[in-house]
Amino acid sequence: MAEDKKKTRTTVEIYGHPYTISGTETSTHIRLVAEKVDEKMREIQMHNRFLDTKQIAVLAAVNTMNEYLKIKEELKKMQQHLRNEEE
Amino acid sequence: MAEDKKKTRTTVEIYGHPYTISGTETSTHIRLVAEKVDEKMREIQMHNRFLDTKQIAVLAAVNTMNEYLKIKEELKKMQQHLRNEEE
Repeated sequence: MAEDKKKTRTTVEIYGHPYTISGTETSTHIRLVAEKVDEKMREIQMHNRFLDTKQIAVLAAVNTMNEYLKIKEELKKMQQHLRNEEE
Repeated sequence: MAEDKKKTRTTVEIYGHPYTISGTETSTHIRLVAEKVDEKMREIQMHNRFLDTKQIAVLAAVNTMNEYLKIKEELKKMQQHLRNEEE
């Protein structure tokens, strides 16, 4: 339904700075996403105290992209497996 | 096998800056991850020319985390579905 896809604007705090995120996700989902990015950045900073915020943010993106690509591959394999079973 | 899990150190360029990533992934995989983060940052920059690199990197992390959480949910549902079918 078109109603479900209405745009939201949510302001979140990540690593001490405000960001306004707009999109079709719910504000609750955006807040969860922001919380996880904030957590990841703080975790990276704890292990690499010499990095600046830009570097920490890039590494958080790298880390998340790595997990995303791995899980995407896992999902692809499972879908392939299901298709093979159906044939 | 322990051999498969040996540590690699790969230097990549993301958004014009070098990053040395260490981990158990292959260098080929790390280069792919870095390329995707670089692409995403350039895409964000194109749509938001007033943002600085730190903000672009944080938004790239947010964007990727959003996709990661969605695909993770999809995988969970599929696994649940398979378990229900097995019962």
